[in-house]
This record gives sequence, C-alpha cells and structure tokens, in this order.
Amino acid sequence: MVAVAILAAGRGTRMKSTLPKVLHTLGGRSLVERVLKSCESLTPSRQLIIVGYQGQQVQEALTHINSLEFVEQPEQLGTGHAVQQLLPHLQDFDGDLLVLNGDVPLLRPETLENLLHTHKSNHNAATVLTAQIPNPKGYGRVFCDTNNQVTQIVEDRDCNPAQKKNHRINGGIYCFNWPKLAQILPKLSADNDQKEYYLTDVVKFLTPVMAVDVEDYLEISGINDRKQLATANDILQDRIKDYWMASGITMIDADSITIDDTVTLETDVVIEPQTHLRGNTTIGAGSRIGPGTLIENSQLGERVTVLYSVITDSQVATECRIGPYAHLRGQANIKESCRIGNFVEIKKSEVGQKSNVAHLSYLGDAILGEQVNVGAGTITANYDGVNKHQTIIGDRTKTGANSVFVAPVTLGEDVTVAAGSVVTSNVPDGALAIARERQRIIEDWKLMMQQKKS
Amino acid sequence: MVAVAILAAGRGTRMKSTLPKVLHTLGGRSLVERVLKSCESLTPSRQLIIVGYQGQQVQEALTHINSLEFVEQPEQLGTGHAVQQLLPHLQDFDGDLLVLNGDVPLLRPETLENLLHTHKSNHNAATVLTAQIPNPKGYGRVFCDTNNQVTQIVEDRDCNPAQKKNHRINGGIYCFNWPKLAQILPKLSADNDQKEYYLTDVVKFLTPVMAVDVEDYLEISGINDRKQLATANDILQDRIKDYWMASGITMIDADSITIDDTVTLETDVVIEPQTHLRGNTTIGAGSRIGPGTLIENSQLGERVTVLYSVITDSQVATECRIGPYAHLRGQANIKESCRIGNFVEIKKSEVGQKSNVAHLSYLGDAILGEQVNVGAGTITANYDGVNKHQTIIGDRTKTGANSVFVAPVTLGEDVTVAAGSVVTSNVPDGALAIARERQRIIEDWKLMMQQKKS
Amino acid sequence: MVAVAILAAGRGTRMKSTLPKVLHTLGGRSLVERVLKSCESLTPSRQLIIVGYQGQQVQEALTHINSLEFVEQPEQLGTGHAVQQLLPHLQDFDGDLLVLNGDVPLLRPETLENLLHTHKSNHNAATVLTAQIPNPKGYGRVFCDTNNQVTQIVEDRDCNPAQKKNHRINGGIYCFNWPKLAQILPKLSADNDQKEYYLTDVVKFLTPVMAVDVEDYLEISGINDRKQLATANDILQDRIKDYWMASGITMIDADSITIDDTVTLETDVVIEPQTHLRGNTTIGAGSRIGPGTLIENSQLGERVTVLYSVITDSQVATECRIGPYAHLRGQANIKESCRIGNFVEIKKSEVGQKSNVAHLSYLGDAILGEQVNVGAGTITANYDGVNKHQTIIGDRTKTGANSVFVAPVTLGEDVTVAAGSVVTSNVPDGALAIARERQRIIEDWKLMMQQKKS
Repeated sequence: MVAVAILAAGRGTRMKSTLPKVLHTLGGRSLVERVLKSCESLTPSRQLIIVGYQGQQVQEALTHINSLEFVEQPEQLGTGHAVQQLLPHLQDFDGDLLVLNGDVPLLRPETLENLLHTHKSNHNAATVLTAQIPNPKGYGRVFCDTNNQVTQIVEDRDCNPAQKKNHRINGGIYCFNWPKLAQILPKLSADNDQKEYYLTDVVKFLTPVMAVDVEDYLEISGINDRKQLATANDILQDRIKDYWMASGITMIDADSITIDDTVTLETDVVIEPQTHLRGNTTIGAGSRIGPGTLIENSQLGERVTVLYSVITDSQVATECRIGPYAHLRGQANIKESCRIGNFVEIKKSEVGQKSNVAHLSYLGDAILGEQVNVGAGTITANYDGVNKHQTIIGDRTKTGANSVFVAPVTLGEDVTVAAGSVVTSNVPDGALAIARERQRIIEDWKLMMQQKKS
Repeated sequence: MVAVAILAAGRGTRMKSTLPKVLHTLGGRSLVERVLKSCESLTPSRQLIIVGYQGQQVQEALTHINSLEFVEQPEQLGTGHAVQQLLPHLQDFDGDLLVLNGDVPLLRPETLENLLHTHKSNHNAATVLTAQIPNPKGYGRVFCDTNNQVTQIVEDRDCNPAQKKNHRINGGIYCFNWPKLAQILPKLSADNDQKEYYLTDVVKFLTPVMAVDVEDYLEISGINDRKQLATANDILQDRIKDYWMASGITMIDADSITIDDTVTLETDVVIEPQTHLRGNTTIGAGSRIGPGTLIENSQLGERVTVLYSVITDSQVATECRIGPYAHLRGQANIKESCRIGNFVEIKKSEVGQKSNVAHLSYLGDAILGEQVNVGAGTITANYDGVNKHQTIIGDRTKTGANSVFVAPVTLGEDVTVAAGSVVTSNVPDGALAIARERQRIIEDWKLMMQQKKS
Repeated sequence: MVAVAILAAGRGTRMKSTLPKVLHTLGGRSLVERVLKSCESLTPSRQLIIVGYQGQQVQEALTHINSLEFVEQPEQLGTGHAVQQLLPHLQDFDGDLLVLNGDVPLLRPETLENLLHTHKSNHNAATVLTAQIPNPKGYGRVFCDTNNQVTQIVEDRDCNPAQKKNHRINGGIYCFNWPKLAQILPKLSADNDQKEYYLTDVVKFLTPVMAVDVEDYLEISGINDRKQLATANDILQDRIKDYWMASGITMIDADSITIDDTVTLETDVVIEPQTHLRGNTTIGAGSRIGPGTLIENSQLGERVTVLYSVITDSQVATECRIGPYAHLRGQANIKESCRIGNFVEIKKSEVGQKSNVAHLSYLGDAILGEQVNVGAGTITANYDGVNKHQTIIGDRTKTGANSVFVAPVTLGEDVTVAAGSVVTSNVPDGALAIARERQRIIEDWKLMMQQKKS
C-alpha cells in the first residue's frame, strides 16, 4: 500500500508569473498533473497534494482528478515542514509514502516503480532517488556505502572540495516507511542558516536508507523558470517523437513538430514540418499530415492528407484530402473520400462520403449526403442572431457558387442550386432552386462614367 | 566500363513499415533513387537492382528510370549471396562492378568517382570504401598495411579488444574487377554464426584489395529506422542549405526551412522561416519567400514576395506580391506585377500583368487580361458538375464584390460588373453587367420581430 | 567626448550579393544600423561612416538616422587606410575615437561602455577589444604583459607555433585618443604582403595600449557570408528569447520563434511554435500567440488569443480571439472582446467591442459599432476603381451571409441585412435591408437536363 504526497506549495518566484508554478503546463498538462500521472501505475491508495501559495487555485485546477486530498502548508518552511503537515492526515496509514516535488514533470513510471520495488524488497526505512549528473554544482550530494546505503546527504554549499567531486545527487524524490517517518518527523529542526526544515535530515534518524539511481538524469529535471520549462518541453518532445519514430512514423524536420503524449499514430504516418498534434488525437495508417497543421482532439482515418489546416474536435474518415487552409471544428464529421479545400470552415456538420467542399465555404450545423458538390462561396446562414438552425442537403446535390442556405432548410437529393441564390425554403428532389435577378447589360457604361466625371 | 549493383532486397524490419525500406523517401526521392543518382556521373553501362522483399513494388516504383535491370534474390542470405545472384546476368561483362547498398542515400558523386579512380589506377582486384568514424562500435573494422592494402576485415563482434580500437570502418561500398570477383564468388561459404554469405570474405581470395576513406563519414550513413531517416534528412538539408547560403541566399532560421536538391535559387533571395521549396522549383533574384510558405514545381520571377501561401505547378512573374493565404495551383500563370491577396485560389488560369485579385476569390480555368481588378468574393463557376468551362475577362475590367461568372462566359475590355451579380452571358467592351434586385427597406423590422416573439 | 567611426566601405564579396554587406539585415535592421545602435548609450558627439563600395546606397539607406557624417574611402587599402580618411574630418576633434567594423552587429552596449571606461580611466593612447575564443585559428593574436598592456598584435599567418597557442584574439574594435592617433596615422605603411595599411600597426607607435576582453566572444562575431549571417541571427534570437523567458514569457519550441529586439511582451504571454513578432509590437499580459502567426508593428491587449494569423500595423484590444487564418492590416483597430474568425481580412477599419466577424469576410475602410454580427461572406465594396469609400455600421446590426456594402454607405443601429443583399443606400435604425430575388423552384430540373443531354 502506497500513498503519494506531492509538494505543490511553492510560488516559483523565478517563473515571474501570476500562476502558481505547478500549474504551468507542459504538452497540454500542468506540471502537477504530470507528476500525478507518473505515479498512476503505482495505484496509490492516497494522493495528497501539499498546497500553499494560491492553494485554492491549485485545488480548482485539479478538480477533474478524482480522490485527491489537499493539505495546506500555511508557511513555506522547507520540505521537512511540508511533509510534517501530513501527520494529521495519515494517522492510521501504515504503508509507504512516496514524496515528490510538483515541479518534476519528466519522471517515467518505470523509475518510480523501480524506486518502490527497491524500497519494499529491501524493507528500507527510506529510499532516495538519486542521479549521476555531469555537472552536480548546486545540488545536494548523496554519499553511500558499498551496499548502496545512504550514509550522508550534504547540501552543495556545505560540501568540502572532496565532497563536491561526488556526481551523485539527490533527486528530491523519496520513498518512506510512513510509520517510521511519522515517528521522527517531529524531531526535525530548523536550526540552520536557511531556517528551514529539511526532509533530508531524516536520514540521520532512519535506517536502512538506500539510494536508487535514475537511469536518465533528465527525468528528475525540476522546473524553476521559463527556460527550464522550455527545455523540459524539448526533452518531453524528443521522448515522444523517438517513441513514434521507433514505431514506424516518418517525421520530416522532427524538431519543428510537437506531439502530445495523448496522441496515437498508426504505421507509415508521415508528419511534415511544423505540425502539431494535440489532445485526444489519433491518425490512421498511411496518412500524411502537414506542413503547418494543427490537429487537436480529432480522429483521422487511414490515408488522409492534411495540408496547412486546423482540425479540432472533429472526425475525418479514410482517404479524405483536407486543405490547404481548411478549418474543421466543433464536431465536424467528414466521411470517406471527401475533399475539403481551401478557405473552407466546417463546424458541427456531417459531410457524406465522396462529397466536395472545395473552396471558400462555411458549413455550420449542416448535414450533407454523399457525392454532394458544394460550390465555391457557399454559406449556411445557420444563425439568426439568437439560435442556430440546421441545413440538410441530399445526395448528389450541387450548390452554385456564392449560394446561401438560410437555415432551417432542407434540400432533397439531386437538387441543383443556381449560382448566387439565397435558398430560404425547402427544395424537392431533382429540382432547380434559383433566386436571382436576370442579368442586364448597360452598354457604354464606362464611357458614361467618364463623361459624368469630366 | 563500370556496372552498378544496388542491394535492395531487404525488408528493413526496423522501419516498421508496409513499404520496402529502399522506397522510403528523403527530400522527395526514394532511397534507392538517391543511390542511383549518386552513381550517375560514373555513366555506368549497366545498372542492376537486386530485389527481394516486395521486389515487384520496388520495380514498379522505379519504372520512370530507364535501363534498370532487376535481379531477384529469392532469399536474404547475406551480401555475398546477393552479389552471387549477378553471376548469370554479368556472364560476358569484363569491366568493374560497383556494389552499393540501397539504403545509403547520402553519398556524393565525388566520393564514388574517387573510389573508382583509385580502383582503376591501381589495377585493384577490389577497392573498399572506408570511413574513420568517432564511434566505430557495431561496425566491421578494416585493417590495412602501410600501402593502404586491406589485410583483414573483421566484424565488430569478432574483434579483440585491440582491434576494437580501430576507428576505420567498412562503409559497405565496393568496387570489384568483375571477372576476378566472378571467379571466386562461388567459393563463399555461409559457415558462420549468422549462416550468411559475407561479401567481405572475398578479401581473402582477391589481391590487391585497397581501402579508400570517404572524406565525410556522414556520407555512408545507412538508413535502418525512421530516426536514421530523420537524421539523414537533416544532413541532406544542411548540405543543400550550406550550398545555397554560400551562393548568396539569405535564410532566416535556416533549420526550419527545407529545400529539395532539385530547386534553383538566384542571388539575394531571402527565405523566411518555415518555408519549403520542393520539386522543380526556381526562384528569381531578390525574391522574398515566407514565412510559412510551400512552393512545389513552380517558377517564380525576380523580386516576387510570397507570404504564408501555397504555390504548386505554377508560374509567377517578376514583382508579383502573393499572400498571405493565397493558393496557386494547376498551371496558374501570374504575369508581371500582379497582386494576389488573401484567401484567393487560382487554378489553371492566366492573370495578365498589373492585375489584382486581392481577396476571397476563386479563379479556375480563367484568362484575365491586364490591369483587371477582381473584386472580393468573385468566383468563376467553372464546373457544371460534369465539365470545366472557361471564363475570359478583358483588360481593365473590374468585377464587383461577390460576383459570379458562370462559365463559359466572356467579358470584354473595360467592363464593369456590379457587385453581387451572377454573369451568365457575354458582356461587350465598356458595358456594365448587372444582375441583382434593387434594394428595399422594411422599416421597424427589429421591432416587429421582437413583437412577434413576445 | 567620444566620436564613433564605422568601417563600412567593403563590398563583402563572400556575401555574393548586389547589396553592400553592411546593408544586409538582421532582425529587421541593417548590420551598420545595429553597430550604430550598440554605440547609442555612449552618446557620441560625432558619428562617421566610412563608405566605399556602393557608398551612395549605404548613405541612402541611413537617411532616417540623424547627424551621420559619411567619409569616402575611394580605394579599400586596409583598416589603417580607412581610418586615415578621417584626418580631414576630425581636425579639431580632441576626444576619443571608437573604431568599429560595420559588420559586427552583436556588440552589447555594456561591452563598449566598458571598453571606453577602461580607456578613459587608464588614460590609454589606445584600447583594444579582445576575446578569448576556443578556436583562434585565422584571427590576429593579442599579446599583453602582466598589466594588460598590449605588447604585440600578430596576424595568424605570421604567428610562430608558440604564438598560435594564444587564444586571445583581436576583436577589431578600438578606442583611440584621437590627437595621439592623428599624429601617427600618416606613419602607417603598406609595406607588407597584402599591400594594406593595418590599423593594428599603430600599436607600435602608441603607448599605453591596453586590451579589454569581451565577456562573451560571440559579441564580436563578424559577418562575412550568409552562413555567418544566419548564425548571427540565431545568436541574436537566443539572446532576445532568453531575456523574455527570464521575464516571465512561456515559449513552446523557442527555436522556431523569432522576436525582434523592438518587441515588448508582458507577463504570462505564451508564444506557440512558429510565431514571429516584429517591429514595434507589444503583446499584453496573458495573451497566447500562435502557432504559425506573424505580428508586425501592432499592439495587442491582455488575454488576446491569436491562432495562425497575420497582423500588421494594427491594434487588438483585450480578450479578442483572432484566427485561424485572419489577416488584420493597415490600421485595423479591433476593440475589446471581439472575435475575428477564419478567412477574414480587416483593413483600416474599426470594429466595436463584442462584435463578431467570424468567417470569410473583407472589411475595408469600415467603422463598426458594438455587438455587430457580420455574417459569413460579407464584403465591403470600398473601392470604386479610383477611390476608397467608407462603410459605417451601427451597434447591434446583423449582416446576412454573402451581403455586400457598396461604400459610401451607412447602416444604423439594430439593422438587419438579408442574406445575399447588395446594400447600396443607407439603412435607418431598426430596419431590414433586402436586395434579392424571391426563390423559385423548377421541378424535375435534373431529369430535364438528363433528357436534354441524351
């Protein structure tokens, strides 16, 4: 049985932000959410978030996550002080406690599983996650005996020259036997230069304490400023993109692409430069996406091509061709083998298979049948200023250029709509709808205009 | 006389693809095409592609290249086995054979010329392309005597610690005296751990065998997975961009730009970020392209500016200004000093010089004269659902906003088209074409509507 | 009292350009302008630009900068020769002279302030800006005694092996006591391999000469070719982006973003990938810009979101949502809480607060009131072929889809415009304006058409 406690009370002054540090986002998720996510596979029985600075805001930002407990740390007096706040909340708890910082978003689940496994199988009182890093300056050093038992943790400023050469640093992530920790937490003192209660001091009182090295030290990178946030983003992106490349995805200029870790891609997808895939998005096999495309919370089928477009909260079926400069949003649902061309917006509409909406159109709240051809400049007037209304267009219907459908309106199958027509009433199957004045010609107009001016 | 044999039989399992490895593309060309291209300057008398996995698909993908011979390797039993398949095909051939892998797309022609030159001028039985690489782990090591004569090629797994320190590796590219090779090819055995016939074993039987170092070891990078494909793309792009920068092209954020090696640029072109130039494209002197632009198979004149646009298979003459968000395609032909503005698509149309198509228009199958002004929202209805028809617009004609031309239709010179008109019949020079209802006003409409609701 | 002399006479052959080297731009400013800018905080009493190759063009490109003096160097015979040209112009000048190259655009003002300070406080005859660089190959080496007094400056080609190991190089930026320099300038000779007058030779005649190291050697990077121009751009961008990240700006894929050093950003702005901020641009707190956005010479308020859009010379007030694919230009002025959607161009128009222009519209020379709803496909016909005219639309007015306003025209408040109407005359408050034909239906049209064909 394991409980997780996340330190999320700090302000993060160097972020220079009105937002508490742990609520800054990385790849669409807040830092603290990412830390919670990295613990998920441990199936913790309790999840405690220690909040302080703008704790209310942190709590509200996490309401979508179930069974969190928020513990207030009224003053920020160090990590030891933070963990002391758990005492009244974990009185009857007799399992292990995993303590993490809320600003360490790059931990892999495997790393925490390994930490916990080592902790349990050795019956440790405490287990510390450590890292071997090339430049340990500024970090607390962890000293172990030959059995990986921690003998000492020394802050960087307190290290003597010999100690400074130790490249094994404290990752700030701990696993404790909670009953043992609970006993000695009250003994911590703030009798030091910083007047803070250090969690590392418990090492003096507990035994055995063991260290476990993280495989990739980048995992324990903490976020203290925007530059580190940007770097963490790069690390996360590299990890995600390496995974997908190994799975059979081609990326052209991978550095210019961003992919959320919630995205799923199938074999032989090609991602062109400057493409961004976000949220709950899936792309079917053999599709080619980009350049210059944003897809968010959308599901695309196989062999779809998308060029310079924005697709959000929508579905696109197999073999559709989208763009350039198309915008699908709000539950657009494009069936098989459609072509959605340039300067076309489709919102909350269904487009039947083999239909074309090739140019300069807006379809909102519409249902189109199969093999419909929507002329350039076609617009559904779906909004009367108060409500949205529906336009229904039957199979094989062809709308003329610059036609308008004043919804609610229904067109049957095989309808022809003349160019420039405003359609206000229903049209039966096979009919022509026309609503325009006949063309007149006024000769010598240019001449008259010139004479008028002179 | 030289023959070229390209090993293209492998599946490339690590690509995790339904496509054979050598058909994956790099900068618009398949890997195997690139290898063929790198041999072009040798003017080989024979070009043999050894195919196996999905050989039919490889063969079909290369039909556009003349005089290739496809040799089937029914099983993949090693490089030696692959070359053995050539025996029946090269029975009367008495020149040199260059053997290359189909997955090594970054070779420079100069490198192969140099290899062949060394081979011939030294009357070698075989010449091996080698490379000095920083991290030789995993590669076969080549050992030479002081005269650059190869004494031994040892696979990485068979190297003793001393041998592992040799940084000279086998590039897998060979030049052979074919008659000599043909004699000993049958002697190769698969009597080893991998049960494969190694081409490197011929070194034991041939003499003299010489090694030639490639100047830049990146040239011999093989592609085994998508990550290596991405890296090869970066290397190729760096090479292309360095060439153009040295030739007088300015690039802003060069890393974000991609340029195919089929593109030609003139002096003082400025390429803005996130611009992609592809296929048979030329850009005239002093033009400024991007940001966010894709140009493919198109010819642009001098001092053209293009901003956030897509241009494919089209011509744009000097001093045109294109974009943002314009789309020229399908043989659009824009003459001198035109302005093509935002949300404009031009397909298979000619636009005469000093004409403007500034906003929200679609021109398809149209011929515009000079100094034409196309109003915002103008659309050519070129498609009757079955065929495409032509719109012809004379010099100095001005089309009103939201006008439609129902093709086939011809407008003369100096014509004025009233806004909102659907033009269905021809208009003589100097005339006004108008096709709309007169405006009516219904007073207190808002009030009536409000009363109706309540 | 300090005078500044900038060497700007060279052609810069390796740029391969028709433009003189110092006029190439970096982040929107020419190289020579950047050098002038780096001297600004010294408040020089004289600013002399030594011109030669296409000197007229250089002079014209700098007319917007006050009180520059242009000195012609008719032949390019070295740096010493260039400075000799100043003699007739600085006859009565008795202050210090700062000499800089016009192709060194990355100098920080602090570096020059420090150079001048050291020069003055030590009463030096000359002070040389030096740099410690990792790879000094090709640079002149500066040798000093223990008091930082320069004993010798040796060109790379004249260095013996011991001297080549000196990593302290000559940055080519000097501060001189002008009266002392003026005395010995005539003594320089071109008696060397290159037949050039070297400014470094004055070291032999002047005393004391001191060296000052630049903190970051990248500052003295000179631009000789396009690759170096690209590198300088990257260095400048890193500097600008690091500054803004430290100030509380979040950047996602910072490498893909460019920001001119004339831009101002407020706290908690988030900049998405492939976004470019240029010229006199400010972005208010909490705004989110990009991906794929260009903003130039525009002022955005707080909490604005902009997605895939181009905004130039415009204002956007707080809480507006812009894009994707919007284009604001030419003094567009968007008030609070507006939504400007896809395929919308707004030019020289004011949009009152809480108004929507959501799709496929062009507004030019228009003034919109508050809470106006502009229907999809609405166009202001502002141009009669000769002049631009104004459209005025009152509060809460709603325009129908594909309507056109033939300017000059005024719509009152609470007006309704029917879809597809061309509005040519003014509309009073609360009225409906309608200008379209009633819809007719011709039944069995499809059937008739099919029969006609057969």
